[in-house]
Amino acid sequence: MKLFWSPRTRAFRTLWLLEETGAPYELVRVDLNGGDGIDDAELLAANPMGKVPALVDRGIPIAESGAIALYVADRFPEAGLSPPLGDPERGPFLHWMIFVASCVEPALVQKMKGVELPTSAAGWGSFEKVMSVLDARLSTHPFLVGERFTAADTLLATDLGYFIQVFKMLEPRPSFTAYLARCAERPAFVRARAIEAEYA
Amino acid sequence: MKLFWSPRTRAFRTLWLLEETGAPYELVRVDLNGGDGIDDAELLAANPMGKVPALVDRGIPIAESGAIALYVADRFPEAGLSPPLGDPERGPFLHWMIFVASCVEPALVQKMKGVELPTSAAGWGSFEKVMSVLDARLSTHPFLVGERFTAADTLLATDLGYFIQVFKMLEPRPSFTAYLARCAERPAFVRARAIEAEYA
Ligand SMILES: N[C@@H](CCC(=O)N[C@@H](CS)C(=O)NCC(=O)O)C(=O)O
Ligand SMILES: N[C@@H](CCC(=O)N[C@@H](CS)C(=O)NCC(=O)O)C(=O)O
Repeated sequence: MKLFWSPRTRAFRTLWLLEETGAPYELVRVDLNGGDGIDDAELLAANPMGKVPALVDRGIPIAESGAIALYVADRFPEAGLSPPLGDPERGPFLHWMIFVASCVEPALVQKMKGVELPTSAAGWGSFEKVMSVLDARLSTHPFLVGERFTAADTLLATDLGYFIQVFKMLEPRPSFTAYLARCAERPAFVRARAIEAEYA
Repeated sequence: MKLFWSPRTRAFRTLWLLEETGAPYELVRVDLNGGDGIDDAELLAANPMGKVPALVDRGIPIAESGAIALYVADRFPEAGLSPPLGDPERGPFLHWMIFVASCVEPALVQKMKGVELPTSAAGWGSFEKVMSVLDARLSTHPFLVGERFTAADTLLATDLGYFIQVFKMLEPRPSFTAYLARCAERPAFVRARAIEAEYA
């Protein structure tokens, strides 16, 4: 596996996830130019959006951090990052994975840019609504899908961590603080942070 | 399976998808109030966002149309709506599924509301970028994932159909028109449209 990655981006999700699997991978650092995607032929072949992260596994490109998370979790079942097909938690796992991709992410962008939208137009309702759904969930479950850490947590904890700790744009509700602390204890998280620190 | 649905919403995706499987399901019509989610106890138990679609399968709730699509496609493998785990097309399938949820959807909302955002901030770059990636893909492949129709097409074709045919907010590029025509030929699509018409 080859991971196209840049430090301090959403690609941290994937770095952490790959560390969770214990599988070997090659890290390809991409220099972001802050433009509309990066114009690098190898990256564009892996992701037509020219963004990181992008993964190539056995010659097959997979882009979008949410898709990579679903793919990698199922590819390494022994890592226990996704409930298997047929498991009663499979549906809730998919629900929370997609909730991060299609509700949490655009809600954070909306908040960051101070954009007003009617709540019925946005598939994520509103920033406040998304945060209160997450708060209710994380107040009653240690991880997003339930008792066990899954790939969904590599997505959510990365987003919440940036937003609360780096951008300081979100009041750290107690459920969020406790959740981030639980995630930060993962040895794979600690290793991924160390890899990022090396490049800083 | 029980589907919470309203006519002329994103829930059409799921109605069409369930028709593709041929499996029996119960349709529960929800009256939207155009507010910040619907305050109905049964719907809220199925989807904490109070939005449609939401699915309950064997007592287990699954929300988010993208998640429902992934779930249903894998639950009925005989319908051929998703490449199985281990198939070389599994990664590309996941990529395009998530691309619709996390790039196409927010790009359409952004366009609809005329919101300006820096392209590096939005995980979807820009509306134009997303449309050109889709155009390139659909100009060279009959369906999003390749040669075969998959659950990803129930997501994308519903979005493009609304945007081009109903809202008239997108110039119908030739690749989009041909793609929508191919999708509209599916007997399950025709049945889903007939079900919606009954309620209109
Ligand atoms: N929806 C994508 C978003 C990826 C994304 O926006 N990546 C940013 C870094 S956080 C990027 O590569 N930006 C470079 C650019 O747009 O030029 C995902 O989840 O993978
Ligand atoms: N991200 C969700 C979006 C669902 C959504 O926004 N549904 C709309 C109908 S298209 C809804 O239920 N609106 C009612 C409301 O917000 O009150 C999905 O893909 O399922």
